[in-house]
Amino acid sequence: MSIRIFITGGTFDKEYNELNGELFFKDSHLPEMLELGRNLIPVEIRTLMMVDSLEMTQMDRELIVEHCIKSPEDKIIITHGTDTMAKTAALIAKEVKNKTIVVTGAMVPYKFGSSDGLFNLGSAMAFVQTLPVGVYVAMNGRYFNANNVRKNKETGEFEELK
Amino acid sequence: MSIRIFITGGTFDKEYNELNGELFFKDSHLPEMLELGRNLIPVEIRTLMMVDSLEMTQMDRELIVEHCIKSPEDKIIITHGTDTMAKTAALIAKEVKNKTIVVTGAMVPYKFGSSDGLFNLGSAMAFVQTLPVGVYVAMNGRYFNANNVRKNKETGEFEELK
Amino acid sequence: MSIRIFITGGTFDKEYNELNGELFFKDSHLPEMLELGRNLIPVEIRTLMMVDSLEMTQMDRELIVEHCIKSPEDKIIITHGTDTMAKTAALIAKEVKNKTIVVTGAMVPYKFGSSDGLFNLGSAMAFVQTLPVGVYVAMNGRYFNANNVRKNKETGEFEELK
Amino acid sequence: MSIRIFITGGTFDKEYNELNGELFFKDSHLPEMLELGRNLIPVEIRTLMMVDSLEMTQMDRELIVEHCIKSPEDKIIITHGTDTMAKTAALIAKEVKNKTIVVTGAMVPYKFGSSDGLFNLGSAMAFVQTLPVGVYVAMNGRYFNANNVRKNKETGEFEELK
Repeated sequence: MSIRIFITGGTFDKEYNELNGELFFKDSHLPEMLELGRNLIPVEIRTLMMVDSLEMTQMDRELIVEHCIKSPEDKIIITHGTDTMAKTAALIAKEVKNKTIVVTGAMVPYKFGSSDGLFNLGSAMAFVQTLPVGVYVAMNGRYFNANNVRKNKETGEFEELK
Repeated sequence: MSIRIFITGGTFDKEYNELNGELFFKDSHLPEMLELGRNLIPVEIRTLMMVDSLEMTQMDRELIVEHCIKSPEDKIIITHGTDTMAKTAALIAKEVKNKTIVVTGAMVPYKFGSSDGLFNLGSAMAFVQTLPVGVYVAMNGRYFNANNVRKNKETGEFEELK
Repeated sequence: MSIRIFITGGTFDKEYNELNGELFFKDSHLPEMLELGRNLIPVEIRTLMMVDSLEMTQMDRELIVEHCIKSPEDKIIITHGTDTMAKTAALIAKEVKNKTIVVTGAMVPYKFGSSDGLFNLGSAMAFVQTLPVGVYVAMNGRYFNANNVRKNKETGEFEELK
Repeated sequence: MSIRIFITGGTFDKEYNELNGELFFKDSHLPEMLELGRNLIPVEIRTLMMVDSLEMTQMDRELIVEHCIKSPEDKIIITHGTDTMAKTAALIAKEVKNKTIVVTGAMVPYKFGSSDGLFNLGSAMAFVQTLPVGVYVAMNGRYFNANNVRKNKETGEFEELK
């Protein structure tokens, strides 16, 4: 069966606006990244929103939860901004009990040469196939239980709460 | 504990020689790739050889097996050319019984913009942490048991034997 | 004799800050870009400032003029933000009469994969060697006299005033 | 009036064949490169051949000369492999007397991240607009008269004969 991928925006998908020098969202780069990885696993991709995770509302998070519940696939990857990734993952963990869900993102936009996005996407594809039912954050080679992870704002790295 | 990475060459690490227009091996790009992925998992990297896998000998393969056996780490990634990756994995599977070993590579050199290498490395890092003891080939989002995989020479894709 | 390159910042040299998601200046990428172009022309590089050209003051512009006047080289390239590039070029044209000076920049930061920076730098290196004494803006394959150029804010393209 | 660009192949346009690991020609990357450079100069592009310049025959060179003569544009860029670039330029210089013709290429394929191609193309676009009637080789920031240039096989760099 396919893996479901929900896109919510985040650094992953930011682009550079040549006219005003700001970063913005246009289309997701996920299909392009999976093609670059020559991905052979069937996937179903759906964009739920394209937002900076600092601007994600409770309503946005509930929408993500709802889609996780309704999805016929029981393996789900969610691309998400890193700043509130842990918060969204914790809410999903509370509400969705019978699926393997991996939340991932990037520290640097994919369109920058120096992005970690492709590495993280590769690991998310692997984690979602192999981890038991549960909700996880996968970043930079590591995976964390949704209830035991935070982003260290000073280092930019994800770490366990305790 | 750390993950052990053994480098054997393959497309992954090929560079372009400006003077004669041929592809060749210089240093491995693994450290650079792990840095790009902002990898947070401790790794121990060792280069065993730098060869095109079509030129890999039985002696080369036995050397790889020996290093797998002697490695104190019980989670091992091996970067390898794709043409004989399945053959090497099968030999390791026969000789090494108590470790999780993931063999990976790339269809296109990392230094080419269009390489699948970073995606594959990300997935190998995840598979080696989560798969049970055994030997696997990980390419393009999928993983295969070492005894049930071949590279389809016509499509360039890895597939099950049956 | 060498070509003098003065760096003043601009989109060219912006980087992505992983911690806060903003663009910022660190070091200039000029040396790296000249190396990538395998440049064989002797150059003397000096960073005068690292600013967004919207924040460039009259005092900053006078400093640039002064360096152009004092420079022993009579062929000078200036890297500059595109928003006020034409204004700086016009001031230099008024004050510096006996040198060939080419002002260039980029619509997209060099560190983004989609930057025009390397193309513009290559053309600036050529224009400065071949154009007669005068001050020019060189962008996207074209060159303009400093007194007859503006950036069209809507299209982002440089064009003649009349 | 437009600039004419003739494509003949060379390192510039080589791609990596995933199935056999060899470099080959598919389509030219010139249009993509001009788009990346956000080129604003009108160009007319025509592919004359797609060959490694070591395999270019006398008949191939005569075909290039003929196209230079018949071209209505009097500013012409030719992309060419570096190994025999000087030889082709010398033949054109003997046969074509009333146009500005710039022969350029790259040491590393454009599709490799480390290519000098975009820098060289930017400089060729500038040289062809500003140099007097004549035939030139433009590589790595420099330009050479067609009758006074060779590729140093040991360093890979272009240099004057004397």
